[in-house]
Amino acid sequence: MTRLKVALIQMRVVDKKEENLKKAAAMIGKAAEMGVELAVLPEMFNCPYQNDKFPLYAEKEGGPSWEKLAGLALEHRLFLVGGSVPELDEQGLVYNTSYVFDNQGRQIAKHRKMHLFDIAVEGGQSFQESAVLSAGNAVTVFDTPYGKMGVLICYDFRFPELSRLMVQRGAKLIIVPAAFNMTTGPLHWELLFRARAVDNQVYTLGAAPARDWSAHYVSYGNSIIVDPWGGIVSRLGEEEDLLVADLDLTVVEKVRRELPLLNHIRKDVYQLKEL
Amino acid sequence: MTRLKVALIQMRVVDKKEENLKKAAAMIGKAAEMGVELAVLPEMFNCPYQNDKFPLYAEKEGGPSWEKLAGLALEHRLFLVGGSVPELDEQGLVYNTSYVFDNQGRQIAKHRKMHLFDIAVEGGQSFQESAVLSAGNAVTVFDTPYGKMGVLICYDFRFPELSRLMVQRGAKLIIVPAAFNMTTGPLHWELLFRARAVDNQVYTLGAAPARDWSAHYVSYGNSIIVDPWGGIVSRLGEEEDLLVADLDLTVVEKVRRELPLLNHIRKDVYQLKEL
Repeated sequence: MTRLKVALIQMRVVDKKEENLKKAAAMIGKAAEMGVELAVLPEMFNCPYQNDKFPLYAEKEGGPSWEKLAGLALEHRLFLVGGSVPELDEQGLVYNTSYVFDNQGRQIAKHRKMHLFDIAVEGGQSFQESAVLSAGNAVTVFDTPYGKMGVLICYDFRFPELSRLMVQRGAKLIIVPAAFNMTTGPLHWELLFRARAVDNQVYTLGAAPARDWSAHYVSYGNSIIVDPWGGIVSRLGEEEDLLVADLDLTVVEKVRRELPLLNHIRKDVYQLKEL
Repeated sequence: MTRLKVALIQMRVVDKKEENLKKAAAMIGKAAEMGVELAVLPEMFNCPYQNDKFPLYAEKEGGPSWEKLAGLALEHRLFLVGGSVPELDEQGLVYNTSYVFDNQGRQIAKHRKMHLFDIAVEGGQSFQESAVLSAGNAVTVFDTPYGKMGVLICYDFRFPELSRLMVQRGAKLIIVPAAFNMTTGPLHWELLFRARAVDNQVYTLGAAPARDWSAHYVSYGNSIIVDPWGGIVSRLGEEEDLLVADLDLTVVEKVRRELPLLNHIRKDVYQLKEL
């Protein structure tokens, strides 16, 4: 299949899990009515982005939030990248985890955020995920009838190695549930989506929560889709909204043919490898 | 030394080697009068960017163009990244080579373009360097009293691996003699300089020839300096001009402290290595 209709769900996240799940369901339902085949929720869509909330909201894989997502994918017959949620494992550790479902509601991938967000900008944003969260250890690429796709979470996207590894495994889209803030968003959000797209000749998709000035951590919003030449396909502002776009997947091959970057990587001089 | 005054020499390149060398000398002299400590010439500054010219203009290391550059560095007591020139080796092969001199006129580094530029954009730019040029095989980082710096040439900059390897070796500046064209320039020039700076938390410096619509290959110009947060320090237009800027090298450490990206690379999950 060479065309793919996608929706990024830029929802406002509140401090009540049930309401967040309802909002996600309503927005996914609306996307489905528009014929969307792949929906993407933002990072921590069911939980405020706050260290003290993560353990309180955390659920095991297969828990109520997981079940809701699987049900939505099945009900609407769409692929669903379930943003991310706090995941509790058997040892009591908490992860920032993205579950991915196919259009039959079956889980086909799971990514645990691999790079934890610890930052302290003078006069700007501070945060320390590693105080509460544990890090994943795996690169996550999954297959679909539309081709291979990689999923990573927010700060993971800062590391060009990870996107490159996904492309080495065949990814044509890189999907990023994320929540940049009012320091890093204006500086780097668009830049990173455009640069990873151009370097790797893929579509990049970033889904963020809507901006909420009353939140502890203020999301930049600006959910975005960039094409393999680095052009912005579409982009939202700060408000709650759906970004719906129809992607021509043949563009990936066209760009790679015209500017054969990926064939020109000097694998005889340097190599990037998963350990 | 924590401050560095640099000049990017955006000169017009003509089809006469002697004139190009004179122009470079004049512009470097002007920069020296302004107190510049590091001057950077553009890619193929002594030769039109044309496959049929490269073998005709090529000289061995130590030839007249090399001697001129060494002499200018010594005369003006400045570090000089000698853009690039066609280099002829003992076997008769031709390379796209950058010679680097210290402020005593001694060669301290030499980079042969490692990724050759072969492109055929529908309705846009075509070029095939590999028809005439041979490729280098080494990552080039050199030490100065201002810190370590990497040098690469134009299309080399497309590959995030190479900049990352330079930073792994300690580079705080990445210097890029380049000549993007009227297809890739508007699309990707600024993007790449900003993205490499942000990902690697370095200054990036790009020196291009002035635009010449009568040339076989039309350079985009727009010589540029970007700081480690991704902000544009200064940028030229299309005309022949000097870009002079005073760089605060302590910004590199400040950015790396506030957003410790380079410490967060997951070397336990993936590794980028020179072979």
